[in-house]
Amino acid sequence: MESLFDRHSGLLQDALKANETRGFWSPFPEVPSGKIYGETARADAGADFNALLGRPFVLPGHPESRRVGAEVSPWGPELGIGYPAADSAALLAASASAAAEWAASAPETRVGICLEILTRLNRASFLLGNAVMHTTGQAFPMAFQAGGPHAQDRGLEAVAVAYAEMTRAPREALWEKPQGKAAPIVLEKHWRVVPRGIALVIGCNTFPTWNSYPGLFASLATGNTVIVKPHPAAVLPLALTVRAAREVLAEAGFDPNVLLLAADEAGAEVTAGLVRAPEVAIIDFTGSNAFGDWIRANAGEALVFTEEAGVNSIVVAATGDFAGMCANIAFSLSLYSGQMCTAPQDIFVPVDGIETDEGRKSLDEVAAGIAAAVDALLADPARAVAVCGAIANPATLDRVAAARHLGRIVRDSAPLPEGRSATPLILAVDAAETSAHEEERFGPISFIVAVRDAEAGIAVAAELARRKGAITAALYDTDEGRIARAADEFARAGANLSVNLTGGIYVNQSAAFSDYHVTGANPAGNASLTDAAFIAGRFRLAMWRRPRAA
Amino acid sequence: MESLFDRHSGLLQDALKANETRGFWSPFPEVPSGKIYGETARADAGADFNALLGRPFVLPGHPESRRVGAEVSPWGPELGIGYPAADSAALLAASASAAAEWAASAPETRVGICLEILTRLNRASFLLGNAVMHTTGQAFPMAFQAGGPHAQDRGLEAVAVAYAEMTRAPREALWEKPQGKAAPIVLEKHWRVVPRGIALVIGCNTFPTWNSYPGLFASLATGNTVIVKPHPAAVLPLALTVRAAREVLAEAGFDPNVLLLAADEAGAEVTAGLVRAPEVAIIDFTGSNAFGDWIRANAGEALVFTEEAGVNSIVVAATGDFAGMCANIAFSLSLYSGQMCTAPQDIFVPVDGIETDEGRKSLDEVAAGIAAAVDALLADPARAVAVCGAIANPATLDRVAAARHLGRIVRDSAPLPEGRSATPLILAVDAAETSAHEEERFGPISFIVAVRDAEAGIAVAAELARRKGAITAALYDTDEGRIARAADEFARAGANLSVNLTGGIYVNQSAAFSDYHVTGANPAGNASLTDAAFIAGRFRLAMWRRPRAA
Repeated sequence: MESLFDRHSGLLQDALKANETRGFWSPFPEVPSGKIYGETARADAGADFNALLGRPFVLPGHPESRRVGAEVSPWGPELGIGYPAADSAALLAASASAAAEWAASAPETRVGICLEILTRLNRASFLLGNAVMHTTGQAFPMAFQAGGPHAQDRGLEAVAVAYAEMTRAPREALWEKPQGKAAPIVLEKHWRVVPRGIALVIGCNTFPTWNSYPGLFASLATGNTVIVKPHPAAVLPLALTVRAAREVLAEAGFDPNVLLLAADEAGAEVTAGLVRAPEVAIIDFTGSNAFGDWIRANAGEALVFTEEAGVNSIVVAATGDFAGMCANIAFSLSLYSGQMCTAPQDIFVPVDGIETDEGRKSLDEVAAGIAAAVDALLADPARAVAVCGAIANPATLDRVAAARHLGRIVRDSAPLPEGRSATPLILAVDAAETSAHEEERFGPISFIVAVRDAEAGIAVAAELARRKGAITAALYDTDEGRIARAADEFARAGANLSVNLTGGIYVNQSAAFSDYHVTGANPAGNASLTDAAFIAGRFRLAMWRRPRAA
Repeated sequence: MESLFDRHSGLLQDALKANETRGFWSPFPEVPSGKIYGETARADAGADFNALLGRPFVLPGHPESRRVGAEVSPWGPELGIGYPAADSAALLAASASAAAEWAASAPETRVGICLEILTRLNRASFLLGNAVMHTTGQAFPMAFQAGGPHAQDRGLEAVAVAYAEMTRAPREALWEKPQGKAAPIVLEKHWRVVPRGIALVIGCNTFPTWNSYPGLFASLATGNTVIVKPHPAAVLPLALTVRAAREVLAEAGFDPNVLLLAADEAGAEVTAGLVRAPEVAIIDFTGSNAFGDWIRANAGEALVFTEEAGVNSIVVAATGDFAGMCANIAFSLSLYSGQMCTAPQDIFVPVDGIETDEGRKSLDEVAAGIAAAVDALLADPARAVAVCGAIANPATLDRVAAARHLGRIVRDSAPLPEGRSATPLILAVDAAETSAHEEERFGPISFIVAVRDAEAGIAVAAELARRKGAITAALYDTDEGRIARAADEFARAGANLSVNLTGGIYVNQSAAFSDYHVTGANPAGNASLTDAAFIAGRFRLAMWRRPRAA
């Protein structure tokens, strides 16, 4: 019988090559098209999604002492889904009991299973799109892309790196040491991959699959059992993921408890108990710096990988395409209402204005140009809803309201006709007068920050990235020397820099197999998706050796 | 002019290949022979060593506020060498000030410099052998081997892995995303290696070079500046290392403070200040579990790699070569008087004895056989001195004396004619009656531990490794099924297992480019020399990207 590893070996080889060359590649089409996913895929997924609502979520064989679930779509309806829940001790016991067989399986077996899971998740992308849309508030096209194919890409990238790392050293070697004229000493040596233990993946509200898949699949492929702890407001996308994975695990003859769902409810989270458990040997976390600090302080000996918060900046120094720049920035500010960890917050502009293809523009003209581009982008309400989506967490609306007094309002935020929504609030401040822009203000809040000149803007933005963390940075400039210096400064600050983006590519975007997401070199996180450091420590190599039999 | 990278590219390529194939390979001859190292090398090194004694140690340009040094050779004489010392703030400032240029240099530049340093250290192996001998108490042949070529091998191994990891991803790529019938989006992307910051290497008394070189060269090659904090009783080997490296750095045009020596004195260590410093981003530590715990609790955000203590075991289940087994175990117990982190402490033997090529042997006969083999090995005093060396730390003698009441004495410890010395103390205990053997008792102390049967011995030894840590394990057995089960159990316990060693290869030995030293999978340490996990996190990748110019 064809093994799962053999079945997907072409996919794996392509992913390995893509990871090495880092050009564009994606095996999972990002277009929610019936031509690709099947003409009835959209309708079927809608029906499947509706069938999940208001019912218990079925996870055969999963530990369960009660049902939990209080998801409410940012687009309106309560989901009413009850997930199986168990206390942390029961989850840890079930995970431990599934561990030995999983750890003893061959890396190829585990990699084959992971690839099969990802392939099935890809086929379920429309359903996952619905689930992500109604838990995160992303509009459907983005929920499909980011929650489906792009998340699957990130998962596949992690599996490919895991395979590369597990197979970097040979499994056997003959060690033959010369002894002058005497016979050599000959040892046969055998190595095996030993996983660390139980891995905990803590998901976030805004990108439940995209941010969880790398850690989940990295730990699974390297032989650890995994407990996925979703955000209480975004359980469904990970519950569907766990269900698909458990089906593949069971079909392959493994205890499905190799992968568990730690569903809980706001105010009664199981997270702390899991983080503190000595059996938990790896933690992948996406969320706030404050909870990241708590995890580091309480995680004991576990390896901890995080993606936390930061303040992303754009420096506007000069441009040869003022309209293109304003439109590009407008889209970056508007997309999913600034709820991306890659979205810019601060736009540093020289107080004396900039040179452009439309002549010199004052600081106010730059601010007005960006604001007008946002207005133009969002002029059509249907398009505005499709770009901005809805606000995942009601607290973000409060944050937008509270932010209005932090500077001069260049563009005010407003609700859209659908969902819990807020268009971009743009404030103007002077870096010499305030540090309001230096705090992360999650959501559709941005600042046009006056700085002395372009060099000051680069220096201030890089320093802010170093101090507060930043995942992305952007620069608009026409001076090659300054671009090179900015590349140096942002590299030292650990922020990936995009220069002169116009048209259909945005600073927010991070592509699997090419962009490493998060450098790990500033407080925005220590994980980098997906470099060797994110993978190599998830397993160890153990050897046995003996003299070669005569 | 030929670059250092070009000069040593053959060496690097060979090391890269050796790391992948993991057969026997060493570029640095382990034999202290005049034919290899020069006919006058031994005499020259003796003179050079004597010229260092009783004098200030010269490190041009090194931070210095006072002189420290109180090394006393375990073979007798005080060294009387005064090393430049500075407080931790001055060391950190000097390191930080050397950092930017080092970080900005190309990986090839740094790797070339590291290879040149290692090559020069190799030429100084006789001098390093003297320095290691008179700080650790190792006899000269071992001090030469372990402190010279074998340490250089481990350093080279780390440099090669660092080079492989830094060059795994391309430095540039073109990302070309199709847009249907429209023109593709094309981005050029540029990556660079960004080091973490200042790296601290904390050396130990017994293997000052062997245990320090991997972390030292790994951090240096990946662009971090390094502060080496030697054990106050074993400064000279690392001072010579730092001096050689600073000479190469200065010749290559770098601030020699890229590598600093943090010499201090017992009772006035600078270690705590360096560990706590937020600028210190990487810590490599060899030493006790207690201080390892302290480092983990106080190191802040630094990456910490450790080699700590453990209890290594031998399980004697059966043998086809009773004499060979006893001789092999005897050598492992005697070599450097058990002061190796790989030396066995507990020898588990079935209470009813074992089958051997000499017929059935009772537990007492096995114990007596091992004791007699030690006596035979050490019968000639000169050979005994050459095998056992001297005791590095006087506290070890006290520990040997105190251990004598922990069981029935099978073989008593005794001093040798030279140095502060103690031959192996072998005690017999019953696992059912005591747990005295479960504590690490560093030095020439071992236990013959009676267990129910071979399976129990394997289970108990593996459990002990899991709980207390173990770097090595050994098994003597003739049952292939039981050997396979033991391989499973010790792998799960994270201890590398040697089976049926007889002749000139010992469980204590760990060869660079082949054996991964420490698995990282039990409390004996989280470092593994040298896997990707030991290297990959020492640097990060930062990118800048922009649309390709038309």
